[in-house]
Amino acid sequence: MALRIGVIGAGQLARMMIAPAVELGLDIRVLAEDEGMSAQLAATAVGDYRDVETVRRFAAEVDVVTFDHEHVPQEVLRALVADGIAVHPGPDALRFAQDKLEMRARLADLGVPQPDWARVESPEALQSFLDAHGGRGVVKTPRGGYDGKGVRVVDNAQDAAEWFDRLESGDALLVEELVPFVRELAQQVARRPSGESVVYPVVETVQRGGVCAEVLSPAPGASEKLIEVAARIGREIAEGLGVTGMLAVELFETDDERILVNELAMRPHNSGHWSQDGAITGQFEQHLRAVADLPLGDTSLRAPWAVMVNILGGPQNATMGERLDTVMQKHPSAKVHTYGKDPRPGRKVGHINVTGDDLDDAVYEARSAAACFE
Amino acid sequence: MALRIGVIGAGQLARMMIAPAVELGLDIRVLAEDEGMSAQLAATAVGDYRDVETVRRFAAEVDVVTFDHEHVPQEVLRALVADGIAVHPGPDALRFAQDKLEMRARLADLGVPQPDWARVESPEALQSFLDAHGGRGVVKTPRGGYDGKGVRVVDNAQDAAEWFDRLESGDALLVEELVPFVRELAQQVARRPSGESVVYPVVETVQRGGVCAEVLSPAPGASEKLIEVAARIGREIAEGLGVTGMLAVELFETDDERILVNELAMRPHNSGHWSQDGAITGQFEQHLRAVADLPLGDTSLRAPWAVMVNILGGPQNATMGERLDTVMQKHPSAKVHTYGKDPRPGRKVGHINVTGDDLDDAVYEARSAAACFE
Repeated sequence: MALRIGVIGAGQLARMMIAPAVELGLDIRVLAEDEGMSAQLAATAVGDYRDVETVRRFAAEVDVVTFDHEHVPQEVLRALVADGIAVHPGPDALRFAQDKLEMRARLADLGVPQPDWARVESPEALQSFLDAHGGRGVVKTPRGGYDGKGVRVVDNAQDAAEWFDRLESGDALLVEELVPFVRELAQQVARRPSGESVVYPVVETVQRGGVCAEVLSPAPGASEKLIEVAARIGREIAEGLGVTGMLAVELFETDDERILVNELAMRPHNSGHWSQDGAITGQFEQHLRAVADLPLGDTSLRAPWAVMVNILGGPQNATMGERLDTVMQKHPSAKVHTYGKDPRPGRKVGHINVTGDDLDDAVYEARSAAACFE
Repeated sequence: MALRIGVIGAGQLARMMIAPAVELGLDIRVLAEDEGMSAQLAATAVGDYRDVETVRRFAAEVDVVTFDHEHVPQEVLRALVADGIAVHPGPDALRFAQDKLEMRARLADLGVPQPDWARVESPEALQSFLDAHGGRGVVKTPRGGYDGKGVRVVDNAQDAAEWFDRLESGDALLVEELVPFVRELAQQVARRPSGESVVYPVVETVQRGGVCAEVLSPAPGASEKLIEVAARIGREIAEGLGVTGMLAVELFETDDERILVNELAMRPHNSGHWSQDGAITGQFEQHLRAVADLPLGDTSLRAPWAVMVNILGGPQNATMGERLDTVMQKHPSAKVHTYGKDPRPGRKVGHINVTGDDLDDAVYEARSAAACFE
């Protein structure tokens, strides 16, 4: 019988695991939040991932549980582990992706380079941190943020007053120094439960409005030292936090050539979508191999350059299908990945990958192809 | 609403259409012969493809009908067309893939180079052909053969006596000269209903026991002239027979540098599996684009060489899953494609693709990886 992999959550990340699961002969089953989700094709159950009995019933029918997102509550995860179910990444790793304060504290213990930060329980504590860091900082809610939500650049503690008001007793906000970065990078790592890990080349990510817009792989102009340091940081975090499956480490590169950890994701991540077409083993296949504790695949590049551009918002006055015709007509070498989602402003509804020998050509081609969906 | 593509037949070819359909956001639906078939994940109906009402009901829920195999009877195909349903390839093209005598006659009309052949209704007629061609020939049943079945090399008309005995009145066998070929080639072509066509580079196919064992892409040592002639023959056949979707043309290369058409398949074909990992647009994505009348994709190679080796028979004393671990451990760069089929001797249960800069290395790697399943 084929190995059964259960994915909690039916978004586009679960959807993009379907293709490699079919190729490898793995039996992928998805617990969907609702009908008609992105990963509908592989959905075998519909229910609330916060409900322990719903998740237990789903998990009883699979050999390993993994995730489309990091929002499954700790008590649900721990109930599965107590039932003897293989959960990857496990609750002890996932809590560092679920809580940014825990993440910062743990990375500090590991000695991983990161921005100055503090746990602040009051506007006064925040103001002290700001005063000590040039009067500005980045305030984050420790939990539930994504794509720029729950993140605010402030130059005054009052800018975060409403978040403090909403804090429950004993809780706190995270404040980080505003890093004078020259660009953002991301490091993908895969790690098996048995300990084997592989790294992808560090990539450059371009954010617009707090959302990933483009990824260039490998990071243009990256020195051997930068590549090595990013890979080492990635492996240290994967190992130190006990991550199983894919790990994405978002990084700042400063003008004095330091790299500092910004955010973590313990799953296939937007910054790794280029690997579907740009690497021998794409991150979705790699995630399945890692969580199934199968030997990991070759992370070599298929071409000197791979460029990913997100399709944000989607078509303004046409269907995705109509735009598909246009992009295929104009850009026969662009690889189109769609998420089966209705377009709405700012929503990620797909992405384009282009590989090639020339970076400028690949960027132009990928941007032009994505623009067909505007 | 996403374009709905209905595939008749749930074998591995339908299975391998699932991944590109998901990527492109096409709604793939499969009419399966039975439960638990290779393309089960996308099966939305189970029934007999020879039953016109079963197929009609299935076809009523899709925008275009295509195929996993060429066995759907003409009367069923024509009923769909009469209902106004888009069928690709259509019955007028498919009949040339269903009947080798019709194919030979049509290719003769088109002036396409092919082996000498004859329609023979009796052992006497067959013997005359053999006498005129050095005493030997290849006898084929015009319908229903595949993977070497329904094909017999004879040096005496009596060798085909039982086939003549079974012929119905008015039917005949096909006899072809035994071509002194130096190797076998295959040419992949995709053609849209609107007429656009694209070609892949001609590849070398290696058969063992009448079954495709290996494919080398592009055909090693192929001259520009050979590449051009093969592509021209492919396009002429696609155009002349009105093929829509993928067309595979199996070819003999002779020691005097001629190429002669051996067989045709109007669907993604084993000789094109290398393209999943070796070309920008794999043949399964290309088939979907072609039958949906969407613009065709780039057929450029992703690497100088791509090698495909079939996994025949499958594991002797282990499960496919157990062998997956072995092949991943030993061959991290091999791309494993499995069909979700129980192994049995001679059955195609998967294939390995390897791409690279060096042909010998790629062949060695692909063969070694496939050998992990023996």
